[in-house]
Amino acid sequence: MFQDLGIRYPIVQAPMAGVSTPALAAAASNAGALGSLGIGASTVPQARKMIQDTRAHRQANQRERLLPRTAVRDAAREAAWLRHLAPVFAEVGSPPPTEIDEIYRTFLGDDEALQMLIEERPAVVSFHFGMPSADALAALRKAGIKTMASATNLREAAALEEAGIDAVVAQGIEAGGHRGVFDTDAIDERLSMSVLVRLLVRQSKLPVIAAGGIMDGFGIRAALDLGAAGAQLGTAFVLCPESSADASYRANLKSARAAVTRLTTTLSGRPARGIVNRFIEHAEAAGRPDIAAYPVAYDAAKQLNAAAAKLGNSEFAAQWAGQGAPLAREMPAADLVATLVAEAKLEG
Amino acid sequence: MFQDLGIRYPIVQAPMAGVSTPALAAAASNAGALGSLGIGASTVPQARKMIQDTRAHRQANQRERLLPRTAVRDAAREAAWLRHLAPVFAEVGSPPPTEIDEIYRTFLGDDEALQMLIEERPAVVSFHFGMPSADALAALRKAGIKTMASATNLREAAALEEAGIDAVVAQGIEAGGHRGVFDTDAIDERLSMSVLVRLLVRQSKLPVIAAGGIMDGFGIRAALDLGAAGAQLGTAFVLCPESSADASYRANLKSARAAVTRLTTTLSGRPARGIVNRFIEHAEAAGRPDIAAYPVAYDAAKQLNAAAAKLGNSEFAAQWAGQGAPLAREMPAADLVATLVAEAKLEG
Repeated sequence: MFQDLGIRYPIVQAPMAGVSTPALAAAASNAGALGSLGIGASTVPQARKMIQDTRAHRQANQRERLLPRTAVRDAAREAAWLRHLAPVFAEVGSPPPTEIDEIYRTFLGDDEALQMLIEERPAVVSFHFGMPSADALAALRKAGIKTMASATNLREAAALEEAGIDAVVAQGIEAGGHRGVFDTDAIDERLSMSVLVRLLVRQSKLPVIAAGGIMDGFGIRAALDLGAAGAQLGTAFVLCPESSADASYRANLKSARAAVTRLTTTLSGRPARGIVNRFIEHAEAAGRPDIAAYPVAYDAAKQLNAAAAKLGNSEFAAQWAGQGAPLAREMPAADLVATLVAEAKLEG
Repeated sequence: MFQDLGIRYPIVQAPMAGVSTPALAAAASNAGALGSLGIGASTVPQARKMIQDTRAHRQANQRERLLPRTAVRDAAREAAWLRHLAPVFAEVGSPPPTEIDEIYRTFLGDDEALQMLIEERPAVVSFHFGMPSADALAALRKAGIKTMASATNLREAAALEEAGIDAVVAQGIEAGGHRGVFDTDAIDERLSMSVLVRLLVRQSKLPVIAAGGIMDGFGIRAALDLGAAGAQLGTAFVLCPESSADASYRANLKSARAAVTRLTTTLSGRPARGIVNRFIEHAEAAGRPDIAAYPVAYDAAKQLNAAAAKLGNSEFAAQWAGQGAPLAREMPAADLVATLVAEAKLEG
């Protein structure tokens, strides 16, 4: 997979919406890794511009992200969720929103996004929360674009293989950010990266890219020894100066708070792991109502965070981080990739 | 640690009460690993006999296990728990017990157990659920016995190091059987093996033994890459003919059911991971009351299982297994150790 694409090292800088930037993706790519953009939270024109900006830095190997199925709207549930958040809106001196919306669109059935990707031809398009239609996949393949998708269990990986995805990202329970589960109503076995990788390399013919808790080259080497074709690191890149993480996110990642993460559905409506803060503590409290659907819940959290930010309060932000967050290092992406390569004793 | 003890390979066959046997510990030791007995569920005379039986097979390197603090008894809570289990007792045609008891004693303050260990001098004594008193630790050290103890987070590991334990077993969330948390009321970060090992090797000067989800030599090699001094495997040894696992346990481990484990407090009163069965499904059901304390809850579950077993029903047994259970292999312990050594490319 990596060799075919002319990528020197089996290292993926994870696509992270709101954190990845063209500068980060380009720096990681220039250093020999697979740099990525997260475009799930972007409009098609924004995504196109990010891809072009990355290319301006170099002929980078951008990756993209899929958004999940269209939200199931439920007015009563959304209203109950806003009532649950009312006390924290009051804390930041803001009335709760009267309505919240589906702020992101799914890639599924989004012909405009597909067309843009085919025109821009990134080396790889990566999917999260599920997989594209057979037609979309065929169109990407015809355009010479490789595909990757996240799996959190063997069932999802089998579906990806059946569909013809080129590589599977084995996302362990340690991973920061959104968990790529296809069906959030199914029981989640919450497999760790190391278990999931070992199970998948035995089940699947696809290259397996290990993700979750990998923060350094020792973790990359371990993933390769487990049979992975490569390793994807997200949290490890957040402190790079090229990322768009804000000062509070950076400060928390460098503090003792980095050791306390939680997998929570309350921030966005889908399970995601981040640093525990006032939002999560309030939202997760016993007796909470059902959480509004993704990404409608995310709209509520983002509006709350925006109101809090005006007061200089960042306790309501989504600061995604994996369990390995205390191991994050602050250095330019190129230096980080070089450090990973040296630690993992990778040969280019 | 391993070299000092004359143990050829950095592999620990985990102590597993109810599964480990003198034959298993001796076979693992004879093959160059550190074989272990689990004596937490045994009386002192039973434990002494197990150690002597193992020694009869060879000068093995037995390990032992500590039991946790004395149970906090609560008659109302225990009665409520028995009422919750009444329907499943009815399913197996048995009245629920009128009382349940603290069936195991803690090692803490158990002078008789300490004296037995000092007399029998196993190479290593390993603690779970906490650590022994300073006096007990000093007595073991004076007798030339090395000590190990489980940690599930950095705080517990720091306490072990401070106390003078010789090596820490980093138990990841994947692990089968009882989770070694010291304080079950504290929030559990549920760190995976790979994250916990990486964090601990940086924090601690002690040798770190990786545990959780390691099922083969590839996993052992990965643990060593992460900086561990060795790896402890439990579930991997359950199918060995030398273990005392019964036919149902073996059949489930070899079936698709092995892929569905749950970390549950309902079986024993302490969090432990096992194959999901009728007991766990019933006991975990929404609206359940507070679970009786460890090991009082275990008494209830064991009485239920005994009644069910008379009907040939094994759906109420504690069949501990880690997330990696689908990777368990059925072979004699000596062959398994040799296979692990070859896969991990270990040099003796």
